Amino acid sequence: MTTKKISHVGIAVKSLDAAVPLYRDVLGMEFEGTEVVAEQKVKVAFFVSGESRIELLEATSPDSPVAKFIEKNGEGVHHLAYEVDDLKATLARLQTQGVRLIDSEPRRGAHGTAIAFLHPKATGGVLTELCQPAQG
Amino acid sequence: MTTKKISHVGIAVKSLDAAVPLYRDVLGMEFEGTEVVAEQKVKVAFFVSGESRIELLEATSPDSPVAKFIEKNGEGVHHLAYEVDDLKATLARLQTQGVRLIDSEPRRGAHGTAIAFLHPKATGGVLTELCQPAQG
Repeated sequence: MTTKKISHVGIAVKSLDAAVPLYRDVLGMEFEGTEVVAEQKVKVAFFVSGESRIELLEATSPDSPVAKFIEKNGEGVHHLAYEVDDLKATLARLQTQGVRLIDSEPRRGAHGTAIAFLHPKATGGVLTELCQPAQG
Repeated sequence: MTTKKISHVGIAVKSLDAAVPLYRDVLGMEFEGTEVVAEQKVKVAFFVSGESRIELLEATSPDSPVAKFIEKNGEGVHHLAYEVDDLKATLARLQTQGVRLIDSEPRRGAHGTAIAFLHPKATGGVLTELCQPAQG
């Protein structure tokens, strides 16, 4: 399988209100708005950077994975996501290669995407997501 | 100023030999080879991901910034780099905006690029680089 591009970089922040001006006004990225992803207990702010996105993640609950991440590591890059054409087939192939996965089946992400995470132990400490865009 | 795209994601790893197969064989990225950046005391492995690159960073000396990063944080994302057209003008504008910088003047990066780092205190804990490609 071949990943096609960086889909997005997910960055854990304590406060979207505090972080949005950096990406919008200092780094000058197009701000696309926010979306609550209830399943992950996060509110996400989306920015366009070329063919990729920067996604700022703010926890909506103290037991959100993002809250736990910040507690342990402080603010910073939470995960890297790469786009693939066929997530289901990709996951099947990775299992054949013996790659450890968090999700062996696609689940639903923001913007109607299908996503799956590889296990950090398989990816040198970088939480790595594979992402298939919503069908147009 | 406007950043144009994600130039690269710099990932600190203990061993390129251990990490290269993940990006080349599992994530299926084109591997462009390695380069030693003596000033930063790192050996860098370059991978293509769409219009961006993944750069794996291995320390070449125990006092390399990358060795110190791994000692403190473990392996993981070390910095995010965005491409700009005119780095000198961008840095001047950021200083006018009151943004804290590590480098107030461009310095030389890999592949003949001009680079400068913003201060982590200005960027929510994410070490952020601005990068102007070598003149063609």
